[in-house]
Amino acid sequence: MEQEKRIRKLEPRDRSRIEQMVVSSGNFNDVEIETALELVDEAIEEGDASGYMFAVLEYGKTHPVLQGFACYGPTPLTEGVYDLYWIVVDPGAQKKGIGQYLLQYVEREVKKQGGRMLLIETSSQESYGATIRFYERNRYQLAARIKDFYRIGDDKLVFSKVLI
Amino acid sequence: MEQEKRIRKLEPRDRSRIEQMVVSSGNFNDVEIETALELVDEAIEEGDASGYMFAVLEYGKTHPVLQGFACYGPTPLTEGVYDLYWIVVDPGAQKKGIGQYLLQYVEREVKKQGGRMLLIETSSQESYGATIRFYERNRYQLAARIKDFYRIGDDKLVFSKVLI
Repeated sequence: MEQEKRIRKLEPRDRSRIEQMVVSSGNFNDVEIETALELVDEAIEEGDASGYMFAVLEYGKTHPVLQGFACYGPTPLTEGVYDLYWIVVDPGAQKKGIGQYLLQYVEREVKKQGGRMLLIETSSQESYGATIRFYERNRYQLAARIKDFYRIGDDKLVFSKVLI
Repeated sequence: MEQEKRIRKLEPRDRSRIEQMVVSSGNFNDVEIETALELVDEAIEEGDASGYMFAVLEYGKTHPVLQGFACYGPTPLTEGVYDLYWIVVDPGAQKKGIGQYLLQYVEREVKKQGGRMLLIETSSQESYGATIRFYERNRYQLAARIKDFYRIGDDKLVFSKVLI
């Protein structure tokens, strides 16, 4: 039986689709979108040596379409800690378990690479509601909150999970 | 009257003295020392556009010697937040108020540039005792602690101060 969800490595042709998803998610400002594309470019050019690893998810049996991606990598200056920098699902492909499928894939990959903890930084604005519940459902804990970090009224939240 | 302490901008000739201070402070491992020198190089090559601003402090009236430095810059993706990346005083020049003089200079500069908050990340190992007391004396608050961040038993501490 063919699978509905398939995760593969990043390819150069994914760049425009990733841009499209990040833009249409509506969660990110211009600087953040630019940052995401810089990470894509670095990962395409330098591979894992860039420090940014991508997992892209294709959804659909007969006509698989790229519907989500995650970007993660080892946290500088730490031993065995990884950051999940981005996890994005196309707004038209929500409620299919794509985010969770990507997150669990990243957790397995990080463990394979010797990682012991995964951190996710997010804005309290983006996280309002659905995002927080998503991380909690996947057993992430709020490890830290920096008040007014992004701007006044917009805190940085750090979620963490010890991988065992 | 000549001043005992004078702060100036970074110059290329400061690189070796900064390396010497970071090494002899005994607080930093090889990766951290390398990181510090990369920031020096970027700041020398690109100036403030690098995102890393240095203040170096010369101490002494007749034969001023570089005895400390601070490195700070705007925190990416934030509005008005700055990170103090490094503040180092030569071990042979402690207890002269050099660290505090540098810190107050950085706070003034950040305010001049429109900054509203200064963050300092540090390891709970480095911070044991003197460093924590130094930040507390200068009215920094512990904003967050990420347990086992650098390695197991070595937490990341984030100190913050709202600049008013």
